[in-house]
Amino acid sequence: MTTVAVVGGSGYIGGELLRLLLGHPEVELAAVTSTRLAGRRIDTTHPNLRGHTDLKFVEPDALDKYDAVFLAVAHRTAMRMVPGMVARAGCLVDLSADFRLRDSGVYQRYYDTEHEAPQLLDGFTPGWPERYREQLREADRISVPGCTAMAGMLALYPLAAEGLVEPDVTVDARTGSSGSGAAAGNVNLHAERSGAMRVFAPLRHRHEAEIAQATGLRVRMSATGVEAVRGVQVYCRATAKDNADESTVRQAYRRHYGDEPFVRVVAYRSGGYRYPEPKILSGSNYCDVGFAAEPGQVVAIAALDNLVKGGAGNAVQCLNIRRGWPETTGLGFPGLHPV
Amino acid sequence: MTTVAVVGGSGYIGGELLRLLLGHPEVELAAVTSTRLAGRRIDTTHPNLRGHTDLKFVEPDALDKYDAVFLAVAHRTAMRMVPGMVARAGCLVDLSADFRLRDSGVYQRYYDTEHEAPQLLDGFTPGWPERYREQLREADRISVPGCTAMAGMLALYPLAAEGLVEPDVTVDARTGSSGSGAAAGNVNLHAERSGAMRVFAPLRHRHEAEIAQATGLRVRMSATGVEAVRGVQVYCRATAKDNADESTVRQAYRRHYGDEPFVRVVAYRSGGYRYPEPKILSGSNYCDVGFAAEPGQVVAIAALDNLVKGGAGNAVQCLNIRRGWPETTGLGFPGLHPV
Amino acid sequence: MTTVAVVGGSGYIGGELLRLLLGHPEVELAAVTSTRLAGRRIDTTHPNLRGHTDLKFVEPDALDKYDAVFLAVAHRTAMRMVPGMVARAGCLVDLSADFRLRDSGVYQRYYDTEHEAPQLLDGFTPGWPERYREQLREADRISVPGCTAMAGMLALYPLAAEGLVEPDVTVDARTGSSGSGAAAGNVNLHAERSGAMRVFAPLRHRHEAEIAQATGLRVRMSATGVEAVRGVQVYCRATAKDNADESTVRQAYRRHYGDEPFVRVVAYRSGGYRYPEPKILSGSNYCDVGFAAEPGQVVAIAALDNLVKGGAGNAVQCLNIRRGWPETTGLGFPGLHPV
Amino acid sequence: MTTVAVVGGSGYIGGELLRLLLGHPEVELAAVTSTRLAGRRIDTTHPNLRGHTDLKFVEPDALDKYDAVFLAVAHRTAMRMVPGMVARAGCLVDLSADFRLRDSGVYQRYYDTEHEAPQLLDGFTPGWPERYREQLREADRISVPGCTAMAGMLALYPLAAEGLVEPDVTVDARTGSSGSGAAAGNVNLHAERSGAMRVFAPLRHRHEAEIAQATGLRVRMSATGVEAVRGVQVYCRATAKDNADESTVRQAYRRHYGDEPFVRVVAYRSGGYRYPEPKILSGSNYCDVGFAAEPGQVVAIAALDNLVKGGAGNAVQCLNIRRGWPETTGLGFPGLHPV
Repeated sequence: MTTVAVVGGSGYIGGELLRLLLGHPEVELAAVTSTRLAGRRIDTTHPNLRGHTDLKFVEPDALDKYDAVFLAVAHRTAMRMVPGMVARAGCLVDLSADFRLRDSGVYQRYYDTEHEAPQLLDGFTPGWPERYREQLREADRISVPGCTAMAGMLALYPLAAEGLVEPDVTVDARTGSSGSGAAAGNVNLHAERSGAMRVFAPLRHRHEAEIAQATGLRVRMSATGVEAVRGVQVYCRATAKDNADESTVRQAYRRHYGDEPFVRVVAYRSGGYRYPEPKILSGSNYCDVGFAAEPGQVVAIAALDNLVKGGAGNAVQCLNIRRGWPETTGLGFPGLHPV
Repeated sequence: MTTVAVVGGSGYIGGELLRLLLGHPEVELAAVTSTRLAGRRIDTTHPNLRGHTDLKFVEPDALDKYDAVFLAVAHRTAMRMVPGMVARAGCLVDLSADFRLRDSGVYQRYYDTEHEAPQLLDGFTPGWPERYREQLREADRISVPGCTAMAGMLALYPLAAEGLVEPDVTVDARTGSSGSGAAAGNVNLHAERSGAMRVFAPLRHRHEAEIAQATGLRVRMSATGVEAVRGVQVYCRATAKDNADESTVRQAYRRHYGDEPFVRVVAYRSGGYRYPEPKILSGSNYCDVGFAAEPGQVVAIAALDNLVKGGAGNAVQCLNIRRGWPETTGLGFPGLHPV
Repeated sequence: MTTVAVVGGSGYIGGELLRLLLGHPEVELAAVTSTRLAGRRIDTTHPNLRGHTDLKFVEPDALDKYDAVFLAVAHRTAMRMVPGMVARAGCLVDLSADFRLRDSGVYQRYYDTEHEAPQLLDGFTPGWPERYREQLREADRISVPGCTAMAGMLALYPLAAEGLVEPDVTVDARTGSSGSGAAAGNVNLHAERSGAMRVFAPLRHRHEAEIAQATGLRVRMSATGVEAVRGVQVYCRATAKDNADESTVRQAYRRHYGDEPFVRVVAYRSGGYRYPEPKILSGSNYCDVGFAAEPGQVVAIAALDNLVKGGAGNAVQCLNIRRGWPETTGLGFPGLHPV
Repeated sequence: MTTVAVVGGSGYIGGELLRLLLGHPEVELAAVTSTRLAGRRIDTTHPNLRGHTDLKFVEPDALDKYDAVFLAVAHRTAMRMVPGMVARAGCLVDLSADFRLRDSGVYQRYYDTEHEAPQLLDGFTPGWPERYREQLREADRISVPGCTAMAGMLALYPLAAEGLVEPDVTVDARTGSSGSGAAAGNVNLHAERSGAMRVFAPLRHRHEAEIAQATGLRVRMSATGVEAVRGVQVYCRATAKDNADESTVRQAYRRHYGDEPFVRVVAYRSGGYRYPEPKILSGSNYCDVGFAAEPGQVVAIAALDNLVKGGAGNAVQCLNIRRGWPETTGLGFPGLHPV
């Protein structure tokens, strides 16, 4: 068995890692840290794991060495922990924002803080299986994209790579409340957040930097919180180049994603669920990608579960690739309908 | 104009008082206190009031004298403030739990704290217009019932008063999240509270003491949080006495509530909304009351908006009675459908 | 009293008209039609009106003459009924799509059907108080804008009128389920629609024609259904002209809306509800409008209740203007918080 | 591989069977019927199965013979199909109400229709693994309990079996909208059903007959629809016999369920999710059971996913037992948190 540890196991991404790793047939979950909850059973925080584990949270400095370590802590905390973690981890998978942007200046501009470990940036491979699969087979440090970034990258990359659109694009993200994390705050109280359509980033959402880096496009990104716990949807608009009509666009998506285990092309002429919808993806590792075109315009739509393909599931998919296991191992849950 | 002040205007009940009093044609809202937010505009906390007022919160000790003062603070805080407020208020309307129970021993048993002003208990008239209308015309101190208590009292009182049921009854309350108040807590985070069916009081919900006092019945009460922001529904079961069938029960409700401006009897044989449902009552001062019977059993169902007929609206109705205004003044909003 | 009739009173817009007209102090609601439900009480369909009326639906041909008639029927039906209604209505207020577009060719392109009464198009005044207030004082035929169109027009008009943006804009609408109407359909079942983020118009939403006509801009519009019953939000992106920064934009909005009774400018630097959110507008006639700017871009955001300022409330506001009553008569409900 | 067919695969229970059977390692899903949708791909109706199957619906009379046949059709339809299906099914698993009640007179009383195949009633074994595990190993005809019945039976059986409570009990069920099925109806429209607390069975819910039969208790049962798509919770009240206090009750539940793979005892003194909550069970086969006691009273609470442990998952668990496979095969999904 491959031994793994999760650092920062009390949050929502951390909890999702625990769910997936406890159900993974090749993995032994050896340790889970939480500074705040050390000594408590992990199923008191993640009640869906009752009956699946007797593990307790430990302090981070109680960690040993493991075949893989997942880092599920806040940005800034991650870049402080990574240097010390490298020696304990055969493969280190970071889920924070700290090692996603190759340029520390861009990081500083979007995160309002100086990067404290810029010398380590080059060592990370993007946790983006659809594009970096080969590199991930050998990677010892992996940086998993942000949730809305992953959706935006999967939606836009085929259009950019095939030269079907002009470089200026807009990305409009709609997100559920779990993206705000497990820490309490007045604006996330149920009575305030329920039924919301809350534009929390009218301009310059942080993930636009990641999508721009990944696609070479110039991205303007907004984000709105809507009523959902899990789920991200991005709606992207681009100006079509001359050659791009609906048929060209469909071919591009099929070429890129036809063999992908976790990306489905969803763009139907009729029926329910014609375009990607996150609610039927809750708990699954799918990113559904769809599109529409009219003369001069292409729109791309993607949906995923922010805690799975937008975080923990994507991280496990990367580990599967790294260890040479079938890529869907431990990630077979297809999502529910209705739900 | 009648001058009024609201003490504790930053919470959800407080905010609802402000909405109703700002729209009340006979009232001038003269002062609103909040220790924590003194100096800030009240519409920063209650954004639905933008454009309706320029008032700012003040410290409680900045209060003057007013024709009426509404006390919308937590229990325990209320019993400490009431002695000092009596002199400033022509009429004092307390919305806390502190002056609802006539017996300080019962208070201590249900609230786990000694009553600090038991000598004042006798001076309060229950803020229950349907039963104490005459007394309210002269009352200078009014104690408004709890939200689920109000629903339970209106559901059960006609059955008790007419001797239609045996004294042992059960009350099962379902409540929205606004009943937990505006203070943040992890269990009230949207991601945790959304879609919940959370039995937070499997037995001995505090309001059973109020309903028992009001009806003379022996009450066993539970409460479950369900997905809603506003709204309370109670489902009450009683053993029918020999004379009670559906027709007898219907007559009892009609006799008690046929002329009431804010209680509607809702028990239809078919169609939508056959029994009381809180969602069409949001913002309205109605309590809808329904019932069903089979041999040996009577069930009573009531629904209301916990912040209106279960709190602020009921308080304003009491003030209307006290001042001799038409009872519906400022309380005309009928509720929405669909919503 | 001014007598009014509502034609098509069984739908959601119709029901909202009934709520507002029954609460309107200057109006007598004289007749409500429904072909399907003729003979039944209107409160069986609209349970929030229990206790407010004993009216029953009548057949359309039972109508007499009224000071005002509101037409709340589907598009296509409206253009067939209008010619016959003109004689019965001192003032005819149509809430359908049929008389909104001045150009019958544009109508045909967006609604896939030929216009059957193009000769009447010129006779209608747009039911857009903020821009056509003077004309509405004399108007005998009024065509109320579509719900997302109203939001888009109020969001974009100041930018267009002041020349602050380039003519190509995008509008992204998010809508609740009541916009689909009261007719059952599988995709609108609760189990399917709950928690949805459903792109139902990836391109060319019909209301783009109205917004283009109203603002002179070239509009590309999409729409996504999100979890809510009531509520519309539009997020609009435009390329800023040289002179447009945040301060210029703020001034433009203030100039246009500073004196408007039902448009509030909502764009705060911090706190909750910084930008327009429909949930606190349910039942109210407000349209909240906000904005943000970065170099080269302006975004405008608007929110409203699709059944009120996006339909029935706006229609009543037009009637108030037409009859010379204070514009807020019968429209005083401010919305709820929390909700 | 064991071949299976699903009769009635277009509904919500049917779809859930398809999800579970497609993911089951020992089973080959050979045929799925739908009279209405014959010829269409099953993933057009169940979009969560995109990428998991290319199967199409077939007519019922296209069926061959299979090791197991699951019948997921409406009651009344089931009792007409069962006689013809017996020959085609090595093991027939019926998910309708038609073969749950041993007494055809009770069936007629609760379902308002005469039983058409009373001679077959004796041949069915209840699909209740926790009680009939031994019989299920040999059963060729299995009748799966109703969703709220399963919850009520698991909640109450230990109390009844150990003689801890008096025979008169009440069961109050709260249910999500998927229990109403996939057929459209006005009351199930999102705009009507959203945020509901709808008492649809104030008395005599049909499942009381099943719970009574299973436990020997006299059951009075009500049901209320609340906001959720999946999920059932039952809250049961009983009068304690002399020997029953909280400790006795806890021991009874532990004795009955301590070794059960899909029943967890959930009754904690503090923390979140202290009592059973359906939302963390969506998609899982767990039934969580909790309890509380005060002098003279015991309450039992149970929660499950109505489509899984309340239907399809329970049916698969029965098949696992019948075929001698590990009981959790294909049922490993633990549920999500948050969700």
